[in-house]
Amino acid sequence: MKQAVYMFEEGSQEMRNILGGKGANLAEMTRIGLPVPEGFTVSTDACKDYYANEAQLSVKVKQELFAALRKLEDKTGKKLGAVDQPLFVSVRSGAVFSMPGMMDTVLNLGMNDDTVEGMTRLTGNARFSYDSYRRFIQMFSDVVLGVETYFFERELERYRAEKGYSTDPEMSADDWKAIIETYKGIVLDHTDEPFPEDPHRQLLLSIEAVFDSWNNDRAQIYRRLNKIPHDLGTAVTIQSMVFGNMGEDSGTGVAFTRDPSSGEGILYGEYLVNAQGEDVVAGIRTPQPIATLKDVMPDVYEQFASTCNRLEAHYGDMQDIEFTVESGKLYLLQTRNGKRTAQAAVKIAVDMKKENVLTKEEALLRVNPDQLNHLLHRRIDENYERNSLIKGLPASPGAATGKVVFTADDADLCAKKGEKVILVRPETTPDDIHGIIASEAVVTSRGGMTSHAAVVARGMGKACICGCDGLKINLEDKQFSVNGQIVQYFDTITIDGSTGEVFLGEVPMMEPELSGEFQELLVWSDELRRMGVRSNADNPHDAAKSRELGAEGIGLCRTEHMFMDPARIPIVQEMILADTQTEREKALEKLLPMQQEDFTGIFKEMAGLPVTIRLLDPPLHEFLPDKEELLVDLTKLQITDPASPQLKEKQKLMRKLRELDEFNPMLGHRGCRLGMTHPEIYEMQAKAVFYAAADLAGQGQEVKPEVMIPLVGHVNELKAMRLVVENAAQVVAEETGQKLDYTVGTMIEVPRAALTADEIAAEADFFSFGTNDLTQTTFGYSRDDAEGKFLTRYVETEVLEANPFMEIDRKGVGKLVEMGVNLGRGTKPGLKTGICGEHGGDPHSIQFCENQGLDYVSCSPFRVPVARLAAAQAAIMAQQKAAAADKSVRKAL
Amino acid sequence: MKQAVYMFEEGSQEMRNILGGKGANLAEMTRIGLPVPEGFTVSTDACKDYYANEAQLSVKVKQELFAALRKLEDKTGKKLGAVDQPLFVSVRSGAVFSMPGMMDTVLNLGMNDDTVEGMTRLTGNARFSYDSYRRFIQMFSDVVLGVETYFFERELERYRAEKGYSTDPEMSADDWKAIIETYKGIVLDHTDEPFPEDPHRQLLLSIEAVFDSWNNDRAQIYRRLNKIPHDLGTAVTIQSMVFGNMGEDSGTGVAFTRDPSSGEGILYGEYLVNAQGEDVVAGIRTPQPIATLKDVMPDVYEQFASTCNRLEAHYGDMQDIEFTVESGKLYLLQTRNGKRTAQAAVKIAVDMKKENVLTKEEALLRVNPDQLNHLLHRRIDENYERNSLIKGLPASPGAATGKVVFTADDADLCAKKGEKVILVRPETTPDDIHGIIASEAVVTSRGGMTSHAAVVARGMGKACICGCDGLKINLEDKQFSVNGQIVQYFDTITIDGSTGEVFLGEVPMMEPELSGEFQELLVWSDELRRMGVRSNADNPHDAAKSRELGAEGIGLCRTEHMFMDPARIPIVQEMILADTQTEREKALEKLLPMQQEDFTGIFKEMAGLPVTIRLLDPPLHEFLPDKEELLVDLTKLQITDPASPQLKEKQKLMRKLRELDEFNPMLGHRGCRLGMTHPEIYEMQAKAVFYAAADLAGQGQEVKPEVMIPLVGHVNELKAMRLVVENAAQVVAEETGQKLDYTVGTMIEVPRAALTADEIAAEADFFSFGTNDLTQTTFGYSRDDAEGKFLTRYVETEVLEANPFMEIDRKGVGKLVEMGVNLGRGTKPGLKTGICGEHGGDPHSIQFCENQGLDYVSCSPFRVPVARLAAAQAAIMAQQKAAAADKSVRKAL
Repeated sequence: MKQAVYMFEEGSQEMRNILGGKGANLAEMTRIGLPVPEGFTVSTDACKDYYANEAQLSVKVKQELFAALRKLEDKTGKKLGAVDQPLFVSVRSGAVFSMPGMMDTVLNLGMNDDTVEGMTRLTGNARFSYDSYRRFIQMFSDVVLGVETYFFERELERYRAEKGYSTDPEMSADDWKAIIETYKGIVLDHTDEPFPEDPHRQLLLSIEAVFDSWNNDRAQIYRRLNKIPHDLGTAVTIQSMVFGNMGEDSGTGVAFTRDPSSGEGILYGEYLVNAQGEDVVAGIRTPQPIATLKDVMPDVYEQFASTCNRLEAHYGDMQDIEFTVESGKLYLLQTRNGKRTAQAAVKIAVDMKKENVLTKEEALLRVNPDQLNHLLHRRIDENYERNSLIKGLPASPGAATGKVVFTADDADLCAKKGEKVILVRPETTPDDIHGIIASEAVVTSRGGMTSHAAVVARGMGKACICGCDGLKINLEDKQFSVNGQIVQYFDTITIDGSTGEVFLGEVPMMEPELSGEFQELLVWSDELRRMGVRSNADNPHDAAKSRELGAEGIGLCRTEHMFMDPARIPIVQEMILADTQTEREKALEKLLPMQQEDFTGIFKEMAGLPVTIRLLDPPLHEFLPDKEELLVDLTKLQITDPASPQLKEKQKLMRKLRELDEFNPMLGHRGCRLGMTHPEIYEMQAKAVFYAAADLAGQGQEVKPEVMIPLVGHVNELKAMRLVVENAAQVVAEETGQKLDYTVGTMIEVPRAALTADEIAAEADFFSFGTNDLTQTTFGYSRDDAEGKFLTRYVETEVLEANPFMEIDRKGVGKLVEMGVNLGRGTKPGLKTGICGEHGGDPHSIQFCENQGLDYVSCSPFRVPVARLAAAQAAIMAQQKAAAADKSVRKAL
Repeated sequence: MKQAVYMFEEGSQEMRNILGGKGANLAEMTRIGLPVPEGFTVSTDACKDYYANEAQLSVKVKQELFAALRKLEDKTGKKLGAVDQPLFVSVRSGAVFSMPGMMDTVLNLGMNDDTVEGMTRLTGNARFSYDSYRRFIQMFSDVVLGVETYFFERELERYRAEKGYSTDPEMSADDWKAIIETYKGIVLDHTDEPFPEDPHRQLLLSIEAVFDSWNNDRAQIYRRLNKIPHDLGTAVTIQSMVFGNMGEDSGTGVAFTRDPSSGEGILYGEYLVNAQGEDVVAGIRTPQPIATLKDVMPDVYEQFASTCNRLEAHYGDMQDIEFTVESGKLYLLQTRNGKRTAQAAVKIAVDMKKENVLTKEEALLRVNPDQLNHLLHRRIDENYERNSLIKGLPASPGAATGKVVFTADDADLCAKKGEKVILVRPETTPDDIHGIIASEAVVTSRGGMTSHAAVVARGMGKACICGCDGLKINLEDKQFSVNGQIVQYFDTITIDGSTGEVFLGEVPMMEPELSGEFQELLVWSDELRRMGVRSNADNPHDAAKSRELGAEGIGLCRTEHMFMDPARIPIVQEMILADTQTEREKALEKLLPMQQEDFTGIFKEMAGLPVTIRLLDPPLHEFLPDKEELLVDLTKLQITDPASPQLKEKQKLMRKLRELDEFNPMLGHRGCRLGMTHPEIYEMQAKAVFYAAADLAGQGQEVKPEVMIPLVGHVNELKAMRLVVENAAQVVAEETGQKLDYTVGTMIEVPRAALTADEIAAEADFFSFGTNDLTQTTFGYSRDDAEGKFLTRYVETEVLEANPFMEIDRKGVGKLVEMGVNLGRGTKPGLKTGICGEHGGDPHSIQFCENQGLDYVSCSPFRVPVARLAAAQAAIMAQQKAAAADKSVRKAL
């Protein structure tokens, strides 16, 4: 150990290992000339020395400690334990990584029966100084002497009760004096020794307590869990206390260097003259806006303003500052990056780039992409105090107010009359589409983040809450209840799809605002990202929206939503219920022109950009009526009207439903397995794609269809389905005389596809990782079942680091994606790869995609801006990492 | 090309690449001195030369060909195209790998208007020789000249109709002569040339046809699919024809070197004097038993018997031989390993080892392990001509006859009266257990190989057929129908669980017979295998049975079957329906002694052997009544008796069912996810295990419980559940004072577990690969849904090489197992690993397990002998492979 104790001015940010996080920060602030209260740090080396020395402070450490203390006394002109100009200090632990379970802070160390008088003289406030003293005893006893706070609080309460006080401010200086005596008695009682009044002893005991706490049980367990080495040791930082209540030229306050709400470049905050931080918290006096400080203490204000500039320049970010003015001198107690609204985050980043405080790259890294999302949707006013009725799954972001309706037909009817309604259903089915379109938002009591309601609402950019278990719907009486509280048909509610909260009545809203800075940030993102960003869109409207938000193509166009159109469902059912091949083909012939029209609309919107069309994926029974409802109808008819001709018809439908029924539809007869057993369906779809493409190509428009085969698990499936698509293309090309430019690829969405990607790549022009299903199969989780039943709990109790449906699971699912990319490109170098699961809109997952070298991400239209920024950030970080690696290689050479 | 044509005596088995499969075989037989008709082979080199030479036979090839023909004529004393002693030959293609789509065979080449007379003279049978001639024209035209058989058959039919004949034997020599003229006309018509009568031209054309067929479309596609190089070429084998119809010293027959039915070491077969093979097939004359040949042609018989011995010694296996005697001289036309019954296979292998024909290793490799399975179950008499009513999935092997009943209660009642019954249900539930126990066998119209009925029946060793779609059950009228045919309550049926067939009435049966040879074979297997063999057993009876069959422990004891006991179901339901924690714990307390008793019984049977106990796995709703039935009941009550108190109760049950209901139960709230949310259930189970173990340990018995946590996907799940188990063990150890010896491990049954096996191994004492569920999740197949809907078709159309639930999918699931083992052992060298899915009883999968270095396989009790043999075979093959590799390394050094 070269040196055991460092004055703040001897250290810097780089000395974190020796000074701990706090010590290094304070040293850095001192180094760049900020007005920080003076102090010094006992190093981590001293801690190691302590443990090497049988938990004793060595003579060398003590010598250096007291030498530093003397220097501190000289600088401040105060003295520890002196009655005149007494010095008080704070003692804080400072591990390299902040660690719960360790001793944290002792304030006002140096207090005793003498120095309390000195403080009274300086502040002219006996009540304050005795309150400070009793707080010190309580804190010191708890963290240093091990006497629990409980014993002190109990006595304080008893005293207040005796006096008939209900709050602390009613306590006078004499009351506090009396309490101090009681407190000393408690200490004597528990430790068999009087409270240590010698400030130097207080200091030594505090330092030993910090060192001891390094090895207590909680800290050890924490280190084991977080893989922090046990031999790092902790530092201890000693800093002089400053007082804002030393008269009218003193004060205290908090401020932001910019407006954290709008991002505007003005100082924002408040202060109190002749006051300590506690006074602000207690709320007895009303703080003043920071701007008025200019008039009250012009010099201090000027110093403060220039300090703020210096801080921003140094930290490259908007700062949240605690400060105190002691006798006309400004001190910074703390500074940290300030929390801000989404809007402010964007404005601040863009402004700071323009002010040359940040580079473009740094500015982009400053904004949390998830925040952008809020800016794109109507949202509940940030100042509204939330008092929700119930909370479900946040299935689709945005907020909405409307009147409760319980059927799709009601929703449709009311909307036509100009009413704003929210559709509340146990769950929705394809039959409800017109109701969802007509509603402001949807709430379901069952189903998860991938339920019908959730998927459809997200696609439409409508707010949606799913799996709201506690919401008991009574469809007959047209009402729902939550814990006995009843909400009737046409009562007004508000929902927040970003949090899953339902509110009674109307709630103040904020409209989405896409500022110039927002657009600028995205333009910069586009300059710097490597990956493409596409959208998941199933109709011309979504396609247009996503193009407007910057999508460079469609990564996933699900064709089943087209089947669910209420006008088509009867024809789709006709196809499914067909008894003969001829009947089925007749139904498919009717569907073909409809599908063709869909594709024409989408291709037009996406002129010149690629459109990945996934052929039919869900099991056929999803297009038939609900089995349970049918069963109830059947049973009723059998009793009430057994001769009804309806009965026969329903029985036929029931037979088909039973035939198609599956124990685990997620793992059943769907995806390309349908295409394999019913190639005529895929053939119809492929023809619809190519007729639409040929038609537009004939009009001179550039069309880039990419036909995607879902749920491939074996290369032979892709080989067979590819043939169906190619044959359809050939038929259309011959018929129309148009040259068709298209590719055929596959979703990688079951583990076996990733594991055998080398074989599958031979038949694929592209891979699109369907990480929703891949997560379901890799974990063996049915998302709809898991979230309500155990997954939420797994995340809350940290069994899982994150919900793997929100953020890609790198160790499991991610490993499969990596294998898929590497095996695929092993067979076909340069194979185009993308991701089209919901992870395509999640910044963490996008970073993972960047690292795996994927070519693009695809997400829902309203996530496109998020993805653009996140992709840019991922590219910047990857580049930084590469540059750092490059540098370390150069160094080594 | 050194040499284009090889006489049989110039070749050997090793020259397969040059002579093709057939040519090499015939050369080998010639080489070891067997009486094979003389001949020669045009080599694959000649074929390559043909293609190099623009599809022309080169002069060199033709020269060698005719030189070989001359040698053949010298040896046989016959001459191609001669009227006196005419030589006739067969021409056969002979690729290195046999290949469908290629030209196969031309017999009797050399026939023409002259030589047919020579044949008549030799055989004294004009009808025969003209028939042979017309057959030759037909065959040659078809395969060499490309005139389809259809044209010839049409004319033959027309002729027969004219003559009023209904069969060929009615045709006279003159009739055939007439036909031959017609045939020649057809050839002229189609080829514009007369039928080639020159035998040398016939020969050249045939060889060219074989060479051409190497590159026809079908052959090319076949080679692509099977990855056979296109440049191997094919050989052509030319062999002289011999005639068994040259008089009373001639004849023809087929024979086995041992009895293919019992395996006894006696010649077995039959022959006809003065006849050709066709006569045997035509069935006009009755063949004689081979033993009588001794009296008729003693010399020939002796030669034949000694040839059989030579053949067995050479091929090391029982042979199936076709032979012909021409003028007192024996010729072997074909010999191949003979097909045999399971019983014969075992006896022959063991006998041949004792006769020193085979080594122990070779003897073990001779028996197909799957065959052993047949010997363990009652089965339908092999001579019974099967005429099944319908076919379902072969869910559990064995055969049974009984009277049809439709409810578990009826089954129970009838069984108590001594009736043998077969339970026929749409599907079974835990409520039906007593009915399954009471029945001889179970048939269900729904559900797959892992349905409740299938799993329970396999465990009990009872025959079972599932997923019998076409069987329409009418529970109300107590009958079922198949295509309109109605089977009533108490009608007798027979089922074969090994094939899935249902028969009307009683069918003759064979009882299982475990011969001495069977036992001997298994003892040898145990000597030579490396892997352990355990069983999947859930009760003392199955445990005892599997120990009797050689199991060395239990690899999977499913605890849910214990919950399904009809006496316990009410308590289990009480636990599930509990509104409070107290109620739930009360129910669990009642279950604990019951579970303890289960474990005591099993531990007793398995004294000294390890028992792997899997904690509760299925979702809780499996223990509640069927939702649809309840819904129907509810609806009925609401109409007929809305005031019924039953209604309220059923509504409560319905609410709970809805709460527990899952979209995809396979991927839902089950396995350790249940343990995580309801640790009290796992705690109860662990305590029951340890109380049972402590109790027996106190009595001096050795108990080795291995507690297995199911469905782990993240190490944190195992960590948490391990703690629950360890705490339970500690409580029991303290309470009983017994030292408990146990381990805690996990199933690897979702892909994520295999992918993160390095992390999971840190908390696991063993891994057991649950390849049933791992296959379901890796492919994304729900087995119950897939098999009926697309999987069977996938296997039939070769989209998949095999049903991955029967034989492990090496490329996908196998890759995960490999990763699991390697990652796990990377963390914990020597980690114990096993497999407990159904693959544990499948020989191909067992071989895979051997190659992956697993420690044991576990399978259903009745598969244990199969697994013992298969494990031995796998070990032998692995050793042989290692030895071969070692040899090639030595060679290289």
